[in-house]
Amino acid sequence: MSNLLIKNAQIVTMNANEDIINGDIRVVNGRITEISSDLEPATGEKVLDATNRTVIPGFVQTHIHLCQTLFRGKGDDLELLDWLKKRIWPLEASHDEESIYYSAMLGIGELLQSGTTTIVDMETVHHTDFAFQAIAQSGIRALSGKVMMDKGAEVPLALQEKTADSIRQSVELLEKWNGYDNGRIQYAFSPRFVISCTETLLREVQKLSEHYQVKVHTHASENQGEIQIVQAETGMRNVVYLDHLGLANDRLILAHCIWLDDEEKRIIRDKGVHVSHCPGSNLKLASGIAETPHMLDLGISVSLGADGAPCNNNLDMFNEMRMAALIQKPIHGPTSMGARTVFKMATIGGAKAVGMGDEIGSIEVGKKADIVILNLNNFHTYPSYDVDPISRIVYSATRADVETTIIDGKIVMEHGIMKTIDRSIILREADQSIKRLLSKTNIQ
Amino acid sequence: MSNLLIKNAQIVTMNANEDIINGDIRVVNGRITEISSDLEPATGEKVLDATNRTVIPGFVQTHIHLCQTLFRGKGDDLELLDWLKKRIWPLEASHDEESIYYSAMLGIGELLQSGTTTIVDMETVHHTDFAFQAIAQSGIRALSGKVMMDKGAEVPLALQEKTADSIRQSVELLEKWNGYDNGRIQYAFSPRFVISCTETLLREVQKLSEHYQVKVHTHASENQGEIQIVQAETGMRNVVYLDHLGLANDRLILAHCIWLDDEEKRIIRDKGVHVSHCPGSNLKLASGIAETPHMLDLGISVSLGADGAPCNNNLDMFNEMRMAALIQKPIHGPTSMGARTVFKMATIGGAKAVGMGDEIGSIEVGKKADIVILNLNNFHTYPSYDVDPISRIVYSATRADVETTIIDGKIVMEHGIMKTIDRSIILREADQSIKRLLSKTNIQ
Repeated sequence: MSNLLIKNAQIVTMNANEDIINGDIRVVNGRITEISSDLEPATGEKVLDATNRTVIPGFVQTHIHLCQTLFRGKGDDLELLDWLKKRIWPLEASHDEESIYYSAMLGIGELLQSGTTTIVDMETVHHTDFAFQAIAQSGIRALSGKVMMDKGAEVPLALQEKTADSIRQSVELLEKWNGYDNGRIQYAFSPRFVISCTETLLREVQKLSEHYQVKVHTHASENQGEIQIVQAETGMRNVVYLDHLGLANDRLILAHCIWLDDEEKRIIRDKGVHVSHCPGSNLKLASGIAETPHMLDLGISVSLGADGAPCNNNLDMFNEMRMAALIQKPIHGPTSMGARTVFKMATIGGAKAVGMGDEIGSIEVGKKADIVILNLNNFHTYPSYDVDPISRIVYSATRADVETTIIDGKIVMEHGIMKTIDRSIILREADQSIKRLLSKTNIQ
Repeated sequence: MSNLLIKNAQIVTMNANEDIINGDIRVVNGRITEISSDLEPATGEKVLDATNRTVIPGFVQTHIHLCQTLFRGKGDDLELLDWLKKRIWPLEASHDEESIYYSAMLGIGELLQSGTTTIVDMETVHHTDFAFQAIAQSGIRALSGKVMMDKGAEVPLALQEKTADSIRQSVELLEKWNGYDNGRIQYAFSPRFVISCTETLLREVQKLSEHYQVKVHTHASENQGEIQIVQAETGMRNVVYLDHLGLANDRLILAHCIWLDDEEKRIIRDKGVHVSHCPGSNLKLASGIAETPHMLDLGISVSLGADGAPCNNNLDMFNEMRMAALIQKPIHGPTSMGARTVFKMATIGGAKAVGMGDEIGSIEVGKKADIVILNLNNFHTYPSYDVDPISRIVYSATRADVETTIIDGKIVMEHGIMKTIDRSIILREADQSIKRLLSKTNIQ
């Protein structure tokens, strides 16, 4: 592991004071050991000149489906349940080991290139080991798990699994991958959503999550149709039911949470459940607009995620930040969801959601070096004089302004050059893979 | 003027059939003379290799304020009328000749870099000649004009003008610039909005617009407060009043049109008025969400614009297209505002709005060569196999995927290198200019 010295940066720390300082950052064995002005290079340190550059904590996206990256452009203009049944489930069912690997690599390439250093990822039923291999090779920090779905009549045969198999395979993956590379990879149990899981399975997930002290990552309250089915089957609303099963605690990450009632919000706040807000996906699937300003007022932990490529169609935190800010303003007024609120959700907020608030999400001595270097010297991010750098990042910058991405002190992209992923191979194999999967389905 | 041969492109023509073809494009003296496969280079032609590249018509943005580009980041989190009175008007009042020039150049740099080749631009009260100089030098196609505001108690002294002066100066600028460079620059009369204009001025603008056959570019129905003032002062709603003055015709471009009633929509449709939809600005200023699906159903001409940098904060058609599609879906369902509908608004729709539907907005033989070459070979725009290129462009691509921009057959950016604008000088002078303007105001 190389040691780094980042010189002459404008550092957006996202520490408790949200300090923005000018200086140097020393990274030794993957951790930030010094932040100061005029640090001298030590022997063996690689020096990164960040003169006129803005350095930020890597983004944390708390809801991603790498296995769906190959389906980008294959699910446009459909509503959630149709989108699942007509496109996503048949395509997930057609996945093989190779396509899972390339789907993950394609998504990770996009994420690293646009400054995301940590993800919470939900895979499909099978071949999840190959997603973990991609995560391991690429250097991204990830909490991931195979999806669990032991119920649901409309699920394709290849995705139907028995409760015991679902649990056994999840635990096997957990035992193989949880803690890999000094904790860079963590396992997260991933029941798809209440509709697709038996009570037996969810109760077992609750026990295992407690036993292994790992996260549970699921969807809730994304869509009115989904809520009606949950109500009909359990007699309860999503979050009430999850709480009833003992799952509502600070290990639970709930994607979407658009249509919560007051009781659900209270449970989420009181039990420390984490909400992953996915504005791009929620708009594109016409699911609705989550009440994030109200959730934040209540003190609920809200972070951001792009969801899957076929419902977004990007995995780009710049898009999600901008969208998370803008969509609330016509409803809650122009001062709601300011740039700093959103940037916090994208960095330290996400870090807290994954239980790593002390390890990542800000640039502070002692933390892991998950760091992104931005070049904001372009027409669209200027003027720079007397403008809050966080406004420039949230409202003006785009993915292409990410110059260098560092995870655990390792450079995964430098000046736009990918260090762990061969882009031309991944693009070629991604096309080959989706071509093969389509030939196995009757999707148009 | 050099002649061009663009070879081996995927061409998104936006002709009447919306054909997407593979082939070559020949450009002679600024016009497309041939589209075919296997064209041979002629003597003196510059050959652009577009293998694995996607070629599209340049974007047309029908509502821009270049004079506000320097104010990017200076108007965050404010509502329209506060934003105008507390920030934009004092800053516009502080403008000098140099700052107008650099503000325009900064904005144009961003526009050319992100694939916009034509704009409808509204300047401020003074120094508009310097914006036209920037437009002339940069090579962008523009309809522009000095803003007219001969009324309004809260307007800073430096922006208050007499009716006769406003008209005289407008006509002087028109006579100097309208038709410049083979019609690349056109004058557009630019009364700010009904609130800031006397009836005398608007009636005179109507006559002059007819006499010179040039466009009138104004704002209408952006904000509830604005509508109330118009109603109180004229006894009519915006569009009814403009129609009453004879301004509602196909030379009128109306920015925003968020809160139209049925009568206003009917006038707009029947009189062939053009609506410029500005989704990014409308969200950021909390103005509301325009009913674009309904307007399109009625057959109204709707195109897109980013508005000014301080209310967006980008001038980026990729952002506006994505936003125009996504914000309607939770309201009107997931199939509303599909990628092709939005892409049409961004290209041929804009061309028709500026009265150039026969000249630009599509890639067809006989049209002016306003052409953008995209490189979609990246993680975030893949897979490519069996995906509609227009979905890739609208939902996945970003400004940085623009490789080359051509206007009137002239290359203004090639492989990311600006040909008509020196970026480092513009960035430096933009910062110097805003620093000087801020020192003249008491803006925080």
